[in-house]
Amino acid sequence: MGRVIKVISLKHFFVLSMALNVSLILRAINQDNRAPMAVQKGINAAQMTFLSFPLLSSPTAATPATQPLGQNGRERVINLDHGDPTMYEKYWKQVGDKATIVIPGWQSMSYFSDVKNLCWFLEPEFAKQIVRVHKVVGNALTEGRHIVVGTGSSQLFSAALYALAPQDASNPISVVSAAPYYSCYPLMTDSIKSGLHKWAGDAKVFNKDEPYIELVTSPNNPDGFVRHSMVNRTGGILVHDLAYYWPQYTPISSPADNDLTLFTVSKITGHAGMRIGWALVKDVEVAKRMTKFIELNTIGVSKDSQIRAAKVLEVVSDSCEQAGGSEHVESFFHFSHALMTERWRMLREAVKRGGIFSLPEFSSAHCNFFDNNLGSQPAFAWLKCDGDDVDDCESFLRRHKILTRGGKHFGPRFRAFRWAQFQPVIGAQLMYKPAMPLDMSPPKLYSPTVILMPLPSGTTCLQESRDVKSGS
Amino acid sequence: MGRVIKVISLKHFFVLSMALNVSLILRAINQDNRAPMAVQKGINAAQMTFLSFPLLSSPTAATPATQPLGQNGRERVINLDHGDPTMYEKYWKQVGDKATIVIPGWQSMSYFSDVKNLCWFLEPEFAKQIVRVHKVVGNALTEGRHIVVGTGSSQLFSAALYALAPQDASNPISVVSAAPYYSCYPLMTDSIKSGLHKWAGDAKVFNKDEPYIELVTSPNNPDGFVRHSMVNRTGGILVHDLAYYWPQYTPISSPADNDLTLFTVSKITGHAGMRIGWALVKDVEVAKRMTKFIELNTIGVSKDSQIRAAKVLEVVSDSCEQAGGSEHVESFFHFSHALMTERWRMLREAVKRGGIFSLPEFSSAHCNFFDNNLGSQPAFAWLKCDGDDVDDCESFLRRHKILTRGGKHFGPRFRAFRWAQFQPVIGAQLMYKPAMPLDMSPPKLYSPTVILMPLPSGTTCLQESRDVKSGS
Repeated sequence: MGRVIKVISLKHFFVLSMALNVSLILRAINQDNRAPMAVQKGINAAQMTFLSFPLLSSPTAATPATQPLGQNGRERVINLDHGDPTMYEKYWKQVGDKATIVIPGWQSMSYFSDVKNLCWFLEPEFAKQIVRVHKVVGNALTEGRHIVVGTGSSQLFSAALYALAPQDASNPISVVSAAPYYSCYPLMTDSIKSGLHKWAGDAKVFNKDEPYIELVTSPNNPDGFVRHSMVNRTGGILVHDLAYYWPQYTPISSPADNDLTLFTVSKITGHAGMRIGWALVKDVEVAKRMTKFIELNTIGVSKDSQIRAAKVLEVVSDSCEQAGGSEHVESFFHFSHALMTERWRMLREAVKRGGIFSLPEFSSAHCNFFDNNLGSQPAFAWLKCDGDDVDDCESFLRRHKILTRGGKHFGPRFRAFRWAQFQPVIGAQLMYKPAMPLDMSPPKLYSPTVILMPLPSGTTCLQESRDVKSGS
Repeated sequence: MGRVIKVISLKHFFVLSMALNVSLILRAINQDNRAPMAVQKGINAAQMTFLSFPLLSSPTAATPATQPLGQNGRERVINLDHGDPTMYEKYWKQVGDKATIVIPGWQSMSYFSDVKNLCWFLEPEFAKQIVRVHKVVGNALTEGRHIVVGTGSSQLFSAALYALAPQDASNPISVVSAAPYYSCYPLMTDSIKSGLHKWAGDAKVFNKDEPYIELVTSPNNPDGFVRHSMVNRTGGILVHDLAYYWPQYTPISSPADNDLTLFTVSKITGHAGMRIGWALVKDVEVAKRMTKFIELNTIGVSKDSQIRAAKVLEVVSDSCEQAGGSEHVESFFHFSHALMTERWRMLREAVKRGGIFSLPEFSSAHCNFFDNNLGSQPAFAWLKCDGDDVDDCESFLRRHKILTRGGKHFGPRFRAFRWAQFQPVIGAQLMYKPAMPLDMSPPKLYSPTVILMPLPSGTTCLQESRDVKSGS
């Protein structure tokens, strides 16, 4: 009994210490804007349906949030299960009118963007800015590639599977990725029970003598490491997901030279709401089939968002090429790299002080873009809980009102281990920021795990969110 | 032999007569803007890849266009296989700044639009304008419905099938629609060989004693008639596609009161490039599953286009409510209804003069919106070729350089008949208009089947299109 009490006390001490550190980090990060972290107030189940996104990504992570979190209606949790890259908002405010788009009612009405292009719904100006930003950053070859635009890289992922799977095979082709892999890959591959492709798990243990598609995510989500093909034989079809292969997250060692590479605007510039991604595709027939998939799926991709994506990529490239001039804005990648560096410094410091968790260590490499030796600083943290008495890191943190995504979602090998991913780094804690009144007082009350915001009497953070949005 | 010559001569006479009429109609329609009709210049196969869209919709319709169309490089065809609703552009130019949107670089960055809403990626202002326009027009009940936004109604169609199909059934559920049905339904249902649903053809002959989903398109694409459920028993799950249930196309007899109804912005206001549609869904669980599908498919829907869609719907509702005031623009539905009336008048006149084709006849009905007895004037024409010697209307017209979509694509029952659909009515002939130089001379040369445009030496219409777009 004494042993149990001792363990509990020790555990609680660590958790309280760690949670205090997290809250202090988040407070520090938020200090500039006096904005609240991601808080979910205790409200009834019907009001919590908005949690469908974390529910999708992580079937268990949101479970406690679908129940009243406390009888007093004031208890809150920190949701670090999914990211929302709003932290770059500050940069785009600095940029001002340069990144503003104006679209008259009569513009961009047609289905067609470029009838001479294989991908007839790709806006020519967006295509031009994609080629330019890859050249400026040096992270991918575009020569000899067809560009296929998608409604985010999710749609392009499905389009790639559709295009690469044999259309007349009797069995669906296996789709694999080395664990820990992006937790949505299995769901996205199998959601519609396609007869074309099926999820076949960890690439490291895949040994069937049959065709397969391997997803290579580099830097990898969730652990941030640089990745190459992991299946121990040749003949596989590779899809490279390079969503995070940008200078703020990882050193740019060489331009990617793959058969099929996916990118998404949301992870580069922070514009997740645009839902715009693109694929660089070497084989013309694959590009045609991907285009056909998007025709069948959505008959093209929002022109308005492509026009806007072209504009923000143009500003990014301009900022890199013109950086240093007195009239020009800061280079976007200098801004975003510095932000990530500071967040990782604080995160590592807090984890070190807490003593119960550990984070991956990344070796540094030469970044051609910054012309410097640099380490990785992913948009998420792959956390290991080193406490002897903790079997499930996700549940452990959840009991302390911190939602993360447990290791089991990233591959069966991590089911029995003490892993969890959390995504405060790209800005989950700023999730509600744009929806909060700008004249709100700075945080005044603190609990060990969360910063409680003084809200107008009778309103909740989420009500506030709706009111402000409707009025804007 | 004499009989053969006589038949050929007669056929040619009819075709030349009909084609001349078509060209005159199109010329008349284009006269205001001095803009060219949809022409595809004879270019080599590699340059014709843009035809993937008609290829998707109609596997055979575009075949001739993938070959050089003439040795002199000047031969052209009229592509009436697919529509592009750019004809409403004129209205949106009249509206001016009222329909313009301005989006600063820092706005709408988050994934989330309304975290309290079941459909968390639905922009609240767009939801508000959807409810408003249905109330103004009186074409659908929104009370007690959940709104799910989609990347066009295509995505919502797939989302509806995903949501309605039993997730754990051993066999995929049958999906049916009464022939002639929208030619893309079979492709969209079966493209990814889903284990959840399968295309089962004509609802009128479906008699299996098993669950099924019936697609009810009203007014129907391709024939324009008002539709109800056609399966001769109860127990089916209905999806209503009411893309064309707007006053310019058909009398609004009563507000739709269905379990699941699909709408799309492109057919109402002409903004196809936005790729925005919505579903009105009665059952909360179905709405949740549709939302989940869109999460898996594209993690939400372009915010930029939702903001723009909200703006154009607001202008439409304003124009209806404020019509008649001296400072206000013309009611959008008065404008679009008058345009459709004029096009159908000319079309019927030409068909009557030609004598070889026939069009559907629609009985008139009371339109609550216009408070008048009115006929239907669909956005497409369901053409029957009455010539005794014509077995295949699509091939017949194609030989005369007019691309349409043959009856066989709309159901097996129409394979052996003499049907073709064409879509000049919503503006295919204006397809390249925005891309043409504004100072281009008016058409000067005419052939029996097409209007040839005098283009700058050495350029093609399609090259022109790219040059102008890149420079904008």
